[in-house]
Amino acid sequence: RSNLLVAATTDPAKLWGKSSARLLSLSLSSPPAMNSPLRVVSPLLVLHLKPVLTSLPQLSPSVLSPRRLFAPINPRALLCTAAARDHGGRSGALTGPPVLEEEELVTKIDVNPPKGTRDFPPEEMRLRNWLFHNFKEVSRLYGFEEVDFPVLESEALFIRKAGEEIRDQLYCFEDRGNRRVALRPELTPSLARLVIQKGKSAPLPLKWFAVGQCWRYERMTRGRRREHYQWNMDIIGVPEVTAEAELISSIVTFFKRIGITASDVGFKVSSRKQVLQELLRRYSLPENAFGKVCVIIDKIEKMPIEEIKKDLTSVGLSEDVIKELLQVLSIKSLAELEDILGSGEAIADLKHLFSLAEKFGYSDWIKFDASVVRGLAYYTGIVFEGFDRAGKLRAICGGGRYDRLLSTFGGDDLPACGFGFGDAVIVEFLKEKHLLPELSLQVDNIVCALDPDLRGAAATVATILRGKGQSTDLVLENKPLKWVFKRAARANAQRLILVGTKEWEKGMVGVKILASGEQYEIKVDELD
Amino acid sequence: RSNLLVAATTDPAKLWGKSSARLLSLSLSSPPAMNSPLRVVSPLLVLHLKPVLTSLPQLSPSVLSPRRLFAPINPRALLCTAAARDHGGRSGALTGPPVLEEEELVTKIDVNPPKGTRDFPPEEMRLRNWLFHNFKEVSRLYGFEEVDFPVLESEALFIRKAGEEIRDQLYCFEDRGNRRVALRPELTPSLARLVIQKGKSAPLPLKWFAVGQCWRYERMTRGRRREHYQWNMDIIGVPEVTAEAELISSIVTFFKRIGITASDVGFKVSSRKQVLQELLRRYSLPENAFGKVCVIIDKIEKMPIEEIKKDLTSVGLSEDVIKELLQVLSIKSLAELEDILGSGEAIADLKHLFSLAEKFGYSDWIKFDASVVRGLAYYTGIVFEGFDRAGKLRAICGGGRYDRLLSTFGGDDLPACGFGFGDAVIVEFLKEKHLLPELSLQVDNIVCALDPDLRGAAATVATILRGKGQSTDLVLENKPLKWVFKRAARANAQRLILVGTKEWEKGMVGVKILASGEQYEIKVDELD
Repeated sequence: RSNLLVAATTDPAKLWGKSSARLLSLSLSSPPAMNSPLRVVSPLLVLHLKPVLTSLPQLSPSVLSPRRLFAPINPRALLCTAAARDHGGRSGALTGPPVLEEEELVTKIDVNPPKGTRDFPPEEMRLRNWLFHNFKEVSRLYGFEEVDFPVLESEALFIRKAGEEIRDQLYCFEDRGNRRVALRPELTPSLARLVIQKGKSAPLPLKWFAVGQCWRYERMTRGRRREHYQWNMDIIGVPEVTAEAELISSIVTFFKRIGITASDVGFKVSSRKQVLQELLRRYSLPENAFGKVCVIIDKIEKMPIEEIKKDLTSVGLSEDVIKELLQVLSIKSLAELEDILGSGEAIADLKHLFSLAEKFGYSDWIKFDASVVRGLAYYTGIVFEGFDRAGKLRAICGGGRYDRLLSTFGGDDLPACGFGFGDAVIVEFLKEKHLLPELSLQVDNIVCALDPDLRGAAATVATILRGKGQSTDLVLENKPLKWVFKRAARANAQRLILVGTKEWEKGMVGVKILASGEQYEIKVDELD
Repeated sequence: RSNLLVAATTDPAKLWGKSSARLLSLSLSSPPAMNSPLRVVSPLLVLHLKPVLTSLPQLSPSVLSPRRLFAPINPRALLCTAAARDHGGRSGALTGPPVLEEEELVTKIDVNPPKGTRDFPPEEMRLRNWLFHNFKEVSRLYGFEEVDFPVLESEALFIRKAGEEIRDQLYCFEDRGNRRVALRPELTPSLARLVIQKGKSAPLPLKWFAVGQCWRYERMTRGRRREHYQWNMDIIGVPEVTAEAELISSIVTFFKRIGITASDVGFKVSSRKQVLQELLRRYSLPENAFGKVCVIIDKIEKMPIEEIKKDLTSVGLSEDVIKELLQVLSIKSLAELEDILGSGEAIADLKHLFSLAEKFGYSDWIKFDASVVRGLAYYTGIVFEGFDRAGKLRAICGGGRYDRLLSTFGGDDLPACGFGFGDAVIVEFLKEKHLLPELSLQVDNIVCALDPDLRGAAATVATILRGKGQSTDLVLENKPLKWVFKRAARANAQRLILVGTKEWEKGMVGVKILASGEQYEIKVDELD
C-alpha cells in the first residue's frame, strides 16, 4: 500500500515517465473519445489508477520515509501493484495486468532469471537430464510408478505445526481469485492429498516416485537457491520396516550408478519412536510437543547448544529432561541405546533394519546415530539421512516413516514412508569428488548442401536419415565448408553428409566419417 | 483489505475458532512469558494481528455487506491474508506464513488439486511421459538441444503490446520481497531472455527445444485448464525460410510417430509480412498498430464479425481498409494473393516454403490460408498452425517467425522462429481418433518370500535381479499367494519369483512365467 501512495504524491511526470503521466492526466479528465488511438488502453488504466487517485486525500505524511522516496521505482511495477491490489479486493476478478503502449516497452529487461532461480541452457540441461534419468531408472528398477502434482498448491496444504524451516520459507501468494496459494516447498503433502483422494481405488501398497521442482522463499545467503528439484520415493501401506530398508536400498543403488561408494557417503539411521517419543512419554509431556521437539533437535548442528536448550525449554521441557535428551541423542550404538532405554518396538525395528541392510547388501553404508531426527514435523518412526563422510556438505537426502500424516489432512491414516533427494547438494558433491560426467551434444549426422539450389535435396537426405532414427542437424543457410566442419566438431557429429550437384545427379551424396577422416560416395537409399 | 476487517468486527471467538481467539486476546495484552508453551507461536501472531487491531477504529460500516458476512470464512485464510498484506508493506520481509497450533489443523483439506490444475496419478503420468518422450525424441532426431527456464519469471518479461489473450490471463503475483512475478504463460520470452544473456558466446544458429509447464489465469469455462505443458522448438539465427520448413517438418514427424496422418491434420500457412504489413504500409497506418491488428484478426473465428470490425476501427483502420483486409484474409490460394497484392518478399518466402515442403515430403500436410495470423503480437513473418481437418478442435499447435522480439527486451535482434505445441488439445484429438496408446505398468519380476523369515532372502534375490537391470517389485509384507498373483497381474509382471525355505536351502528359487504358466526352479546366480 505504502509504495503506491508514495509514488502518487511525488511528481508523477518524473516518476512514471512521460507517457504514463499523459495517461494519468487523461484518466483524470473525461474518458477519451471512441476513435482515439488510446481507447484500447485507457479504460483499463482508469480502472487501475482509481484507487491511487481516490486515496490521495487520506495520505498520511508518516509513510513518506526518505528511504522509500529515494529508492528507484519502476513505473511498471507500480501500475501492476495497483492492478493486483484491485484484484485482491474484487473476488474472482479476471482483468489482466495493465496494458501498456508499445513505446514504453523498450527498456532493457534483466537478462538473468529471477533471484534464486536457474535457467537451464543446453549444458546445464544435459546434467539435469542425466541426473533425472538416474533417479527415474532406479525407481523403475524398484518397480515404482511415477506421479506428479501441481507446482502450485493451496497454501492450506503446507501450513502445519510450528518451527519447521520449510514452513517458514513458504513461497506463498494470493491469486487473482483471492485464493491463498503456494509454490510447493516439498512433494509429500501433495502425495498425501492424492492418496486420500484415490481412497480405496488404489490397491496398496502404493510405490510411487516423483521428480519435481520445489520452492522456498529464503534470504539469499550461502548460495542457496529458491528452487530445487527433488526426487521422492514413497511406499504407502506397508507398516513393516522392510519398506524403509527398500527405500535406503534404492538410494544406495542410485549412488552406485553414479560412481559414489560407501567410503564417500553413509546413512545415519535412528527412530523418533524410541529416542524421543519414549522419553516424552516417560516425562508425560504433551503429545503435540513431539513434532516441535524434533524440529528443534534437527538444528543441533546449525545452532549454538544454548539456543537449542532455550527452545526446548520454551516447548515445556524441564532442565532434567533436556539433559537426558541430549545425552541420549549423542549415542552412536544401538546396544548402548538399548542399555539406557530398554528394549522396545523401535529398538526391534532398528535391529530388523540393520539385518535387512545386510541382505540387501548395504551394511557398510549405514550406521545408527541417535542425533538424526530430520527437520520435518510429520515423521513418526525410523528416520534416516545420507551424509557426506568428508563432512563438507549438508545432508544429501533424508526420509523416514510418517504413519500419521494423512489424518492431519482429515484422511484415514495409512502406514507410509518416503524420502526426498534434492538436485543441489548431490551436484556439489559430485563436483567435489570429480565425478561429474562429461556430457556433450552428440548428433549422428550433419547434412549440408554445397549449393543453395540443393537446399531441398539436403532436406530430403535429412528426412531419410531421421526416418531411420538418426539424429541429424541440417544446415539451413549458405555457409562455407570451414564453418560446417566447426559446427560438426561442436556437435560431435559422427558423419558429415555433403550434397553436391554432380553426386546428386547420380542420386548420390558424399560422406565423411569425422573421427577417421574416411570419405566416400554412397547412393542415398543405401545410407543408414 | 475488506475481508480482513469484516472478520475482525464480528465475534472473533466464533469466526476464528477457540484457540485463535485465545491467542488474539493474548496478543492484546502483554506478551506472554518466556516459559509459556505459547511462546514460539505468539510473537509472530502478534505481528500478524497488529494490522487488524489497529485498523478497527477506522472501519466503515459500508464494507459490511451481508454477502460477505454470511460467506463461510476460513480463519486460516484470514490470517494468511493479513500476513501477506503485511509482507507487501515491508520490503524484503522474510517472515513466514502464520504459525498455528496443532489442534487447529485437523480440518479436512480439499483433496482435489487447485482449480484448473492437474494431479498426475500413475496412469496419467504414463500418458504424459509417452507424449513427452515423443516430443523429445523428435527434437533429438532434428539435432535440437534441450533447455529450460524458471516457471516463475519477472512479470516485466510478459507485459507487452495490447490485446493478446495470453497477456490478459497472466498468472501474476507479488512475492514476499515485493517483486512482481508471474507463472510463465509461454516459453518464448524466457528463451529470448536467455539468448540475450548468452550473447555472442552461443554459436548460431541455436536449435533449442523445451517442454515446460505454462500457466494462465482464465475463467474456468469450457473445461479449459489453468496450466498446460508446451513443447517448443526454436531456431535462432537463420533468416531463411528453410528454418520454418524444418520446424513444420519436425511437427509432421511427431504426428506420424503417434499415428496421425495428413488426412487427420493439416497446417495452414500464411505470412504476416505480406498480408498485413503490406496492407498497413499501403494505407500508411502507424507501425505499432501491426501487432494489435494481428491479435484482433486472430479472433475472427471466435467473435462476431461486427465486434472484429469495431476493434479494428478502434486501432485506427478505416472502413475501406477493413473491407479490403477481410477480403484479403479470405484468400486460400497463393496465386490469387499474388494477383491482388503483386509479388514481393513474402510471396517469395511462401513459394519457397511450399517447394521445400515437397522436398521434406510433407506437401500434402500444408496449404496456404491468409486468415492465419496467430494470436501473439511478436510474429513478423511466416505464421502457421496445425488444425484438425474434422474441424472439431482448436488449433493443435502454432508458430512463426519473430525476427524483432529480442529488441523489445533491449537486446540486438536476431532472426528467429519457433512453435508451441500444447499437451491438452493433442490428447483430446488422440481420444477422438481412438489413437491413445494403451500404457500399463510393466515390471519384469515380482519377488515374494513364502515365509516371513525369508524376507531378507527375498531382498537378496531382488537386489541380484535389479543389479542385472531388471525392474523388480519386492513384496514387503506377509501376503497370501492369491494376493501376490493379483498384484503380479496388475503390474503385468513377466515372472513371479518365489523364495521358499526348501529351495533357498539349496540356493534356489521358484520361477513362474506368468504368460505361459511355466514353472521351474533355478539357482539364484543363474537368474537373468
